[in-house]
Parts: sequence; C-alpha cells; structure tokens
Amino acid sequence: MIEVKVPLKLTLFGEHAVVYERPAIAYTISEFLMLRFKESDKFYIKSDNLQIKGVRVNIDEFKIENENIKRVLSYIIEGINYFEAKKPVEIEIESPVEPSVGLGTSAGVVVGTVAGYSSYLGIELSKEEIAKISHSIELKVQGLGSRMDTYTETFGGFVYIEKDKFEKLSSNLTFSAGYFRRVTTTAEMLKRVKQIKEKKRELFDSILDTIAKITIEAKKALQDNDEDSIGELMYINHGLLFSLGITVPQIDEFISTSRMANVKGCKISGGGAGGAVVCTKDERAELLLTAMGGKVINATPSFLGVQVIRRT
Amino acid sequence: MIEVKVPLKLTLFGEHAVVYERPAIAYTISEFLMLRFKESDKFYIKSDNLQIKGVRVNIDEFKIENENIKRVLSYIIEGINYFEAKKPVEIEIESPVEPSVGLGTSAGVVVGTVAGYSSYLGIELSKEEIAKISHSIELKVQGLGSRMDTYTETFGGFVYIEKDKFEKLSSNLTFSAGYFRRVTTTAEMLKRVKQIKEKKRELFDSILDTIAKITIEAKKALQDNDEDSIGELMYINHGLLFSLGITVPQIDEFISTSRMANVKGCKISGGGAGGAVVCTKDERAELLLTAMGGKVINATPSFLGVQVIRRT
Repeated sequence: MIEVKVPLKLTLFGEHAVVYERPAIAYTISEFLMLRFKESDKFYIKSDNLQIKGVRVNIDEFKIENENIKRVLSYIIEGINYFEAKKPVEIEIESPVEPSVGLGTSAGVVVGTVAGYSSYLGIELSKEEIAKISHSIELKVQGLGSRMDTYTETFGGFVYIEKDKFEKLSSNLTFSAGYFRRVTTTAEMLKRVKQIKEKKRELFDSILDTIAKITIEAKKALQDNDEDSIGELMYINHGLLFSLGITVPQIDEFISTSRMANVKGCKISGGGAGGAVVCTKDERAELLLTAMGGKVINATPSFLGVQVIRRT
Repeated sequence: MIEVKVPLKLTLFGEHAVVYERPAIAYTISEFLMLRFKESDKFYIKSDNLQIKGVRVNIDEFKIENENIKRVLSYIIEGINYFEAKKPVEIEIESPVEPSVGLGTSAGVVVGTVAGYSSYLGIELSKEEIAKISHSIELKVQGLGSRMDTYTETFGGFVYIEKDKFEKLSSNLTFSAGYFRRVTTTAEMLKRVKQIKEKKRELFDSILDTIAKITIEAKKALQDNDEDSIGELMYINHGLLFSLGITVPQIDEFISTSRMANVKGCKISGGGAGGAVVCTKDERAELLLTAMGGKVINATPSFLGVQVIRRT
C-alpha cells in the first residue's frame, strides 16, 4: 500500500490579486490530507469527507449528478488519466477539514493523486514534476487558477509566488487559524471580483497594486520575523479584500473584533465568502474564533511538502 | 432674538484622506443645529446637548475641567472673540444628535456662532466670509483640520473639496444614515492613521491614492445620479477605511450585513471609531441600523446651508 501525506495550506497575502498577476504568499500548515492507494481489480475512489461521503465510485460506470462530487472526482480521474499505464487502484482519501474553505483541499487531492498514483505505477517523479503535472491538471479541470496551491503543497513551507516565479521563504513566525461556514463558492467570488474589474478598471488596478505592495512588504517582514509588521499588513490586506467584495459579516466581525482585542493581525484567507481566516499566533484569536462559531485548525507551519510513504 | 439654523453634514467619500490633501465629498442633511442669541447683561452659553448639558457658563468666570466641554466652549468663545465689538449675549444651542459622531456638530457650533453673533452685532457677512472665518477659528482651536465641515455647512448641498478647491455638486440622490456609539475620539483615529503613514509610507500613499480615485469616480456618479455606482464605491471606500484602522466591530458588522442584505452601498462616515454610517437610501439599512443598536437620522439632503432668522 502507498500512503501519501499532503499538507494543506493558508494564503497569507495576495489571494485574488494573484489571479491577476500580482504576487502572493502562502504556507503549508500542520493539517494533512491522507491518500491511500491499494491494489484492486477495479478502479475505486472513496472518501468519508470531501463531499463524496459514503460514495464508492466505480470509474468504469462513472455517472455522478452532484457538481461538487464531480469536481473532486475530476481531479482524481484526470490525475490517473495523465499516466498512460492504467493499473486499477483503490484510492481512499481522508481530509481533516471540510472541502472548499480556502485551505487547498482541491489542490491537495491533485497533488496527492499525482504523487501517489505515479509511485503506485513505479514511476519516480521529482517534486518539480509533481507540482508541474498537478498544476496542469488543475488548469484542465478548472479552466484557470494560479500555481500557488499545487506548488505550495508539493514543496511545503513559506512560499512567494509571482507569475512564473516561485520562491521559498524562511521564517520562524507561526499563526492561528480556522474557518467559518461558507455562504457561496469561490467561483462566485471570482466573478464578483471580475465585475469590479470590468466596471471600474482604474480603481480595480489601484486596489490590486496596493495589495501587491502589501505582499512585497510582507515578504520582507516574514523573513525578518517581524510579527508586528506582518500583523498590521494582515489587517490592511483584509480591508482591501472587503473592498473587493469577498468578505461576509461573520468574518468581518471576527477580524474587527480581533483587532479590538489587540490581536496583532488577522485576515480572511483564500477565496472568501466565509471560509478560512488567519491571524498572528494568539490564543485570544482562537478563543474568539470558537466563540463565534468557527473551527480552529492547527496552523503551525509544516515544511516537508508532499510525502509518499510505502507501507507493506 | 436671532435664531441660526445650521445643517449637519455627512462625509460621503474621502474622510481621513482629505487630511492628506486628497479630495472628499460631503453633503448637508436634514438635521439642524439651532443656536439662539438673546440680549443679556452678561455672556451666557447654555445647551442641554453637546456635552454641556445643564451647564450654564458665565464666560467672565470661565473655568471648566472637562475637556469635551472646554472644546465646544472654545469654539463659541473664539467665535465671539473674533469680533472686536463685545456685546453681551445669551447663546442657547440645541442639537438633534450627540456630539462627536462625525456629523459636523463642532463645525456647526462655529458656523452658527459666527453667523449669529455677527448678525447680533449688526454686521452683514457673506457666506464666503462666514465659511472663511469659521474655518480659521476651527484651525485656531484644533490646530489642524480640513475646510470640509465649515464650508459644507455654510453653503449646504453636495460639495466636492480638494485642497483649496471647493465645488458645489448637483445630484438627486438621497441616503439613509445614522450613528453608533463611539469607542474613542477622532484625535485617536487621526493618530492611528498617521502611524500607518509613518511606518509604511509607500503603502499608505497607495491606499490614499486609491481613496482619491474612488472620490473622483463618485463625483461623476453622484452628478449622474448613478446610485448603483455610488453604492459600489461606498463599500470599496469602507474597505479602505478598514485598512486605515478607523473602523470598529459593530460598524464593520453593520456594513457587511447591509451588503449581504443587498443594500446598494454603505460605509462608515467621518472620523471613525464608531460614529456615523451612511448608505444608499434603503429601508432595510435603517432597519438593520436600529436592530444593531444604532440611531437613525434624517439623511435627506438639505440645500440652504446656514440660515439666520431674526425673530421679534
């Protein structure tokens, strides 16, 4: 049996802006997607999380109505189809968090499938190759998307992404994080941001350029382990994400209350419409998050990236 | 007896940015400060609102400990001192709202004092003169401050202010507004904004330039009576005011909830730290404001500016 451990990730700065060629910073946390690949006479995919709860899918007779399930399955199927050799396999996926909250579970499924199925076939892939293939699959399924999630989860640690540039950053900082219920999809949020671009182009560019400035300053602050500066930049970035229309009342209240409680920094993280939040490491932030109905996750940085473990 | 009616005002766009030479848009609402000037053998100032509640001040024996009271009285006293002729008067001030919530009550006291006391002395002043004198008094008492409040309340209607430029705008739009309890002072908020300027200069300029773009776009939208565009610009401006650190949880929650309820636009208005909010005209916004503990005010535009009425 082959077991693959994929770290989930948080976006620290630049989400949404990264879609429009601005830089972003992300890092992998200490929550992991587990994928298990077992010999089988047929193709099977199962997961009790990731919205394919209780579904046992036989790929040969593949017909699913639910869009969310279809999407997760598409990632896996495209991951398998990438390889010419077709060797039946049973894939079991275990997720510590709900899908689609901005923690990179979709990218994790792709990266895990590519790393695990290639290994199952006896093919050795470098991390560079895993990241590249995974991103191409994500593009094929989604139509668009930055390399941020697939590359970050493959390599692990703090990363700075700008167009074709992918740079690992070194930092001792740690964070508190969690997530709230989402009220709509990332696709809907992407559309909302695009509408501002179409209706108010100059203003839109001005907002994105300001986010880019935040990210560039955060890159330095992160490497300097300057938590005060990182915190301030988080609140500033959150305001601009409010301007882009991707925040919701519950999260705005949480971020604003954290600021009032003197938490150094907090912001929404990822696609928006609810979902993940990230703060400088602070027990008060975790307390507030729980008190307001969110779920705390282990946001301690992890540095190993995707790991393939062969069990006998 | 001379009665002076001074309209209060709301800032629609560009608060705080206006302190740093960017443009702003404000307008006078249908809430009025009333000042009454009566013949007297001594100088007396009284008001049951404006934090001089129940205080009857004899200016000759002027000694007040409370800073807030001192400030309001300073405006009146400097207003009187501006004129060489000293003729004793009893001034009674009536305010429909609490002071210091961002509705321009301080400027209203100055404008009302200058307009009323000059009239009481038999001096005819043009609106241009009233505005100019009032602003000079505000500067003397506060040390700094934009001409926005004094000029807007003197002339009335919608106004666009940019450095030395003061322009009246024509629009048919109307708004909903109200205010929440403030948690700290405008001075504290001004300091917070200044700190961002000092610590992150380039980023600060980028935020203020973005606000300037919003205001310039809003000027056109306002004149075109384009409520959809004005609404979007209000939310965008609010996000940037969040970035500047002048919002509080209660207000962020109100603005974000209004957006979720499909109110076209809403933002914090004025100095921040609580205080006034303004939305596109919408009963749902007024309902939410009341439900969340705020006080609704009559935000219908007024166009006459300061009015001196002579009663016999």
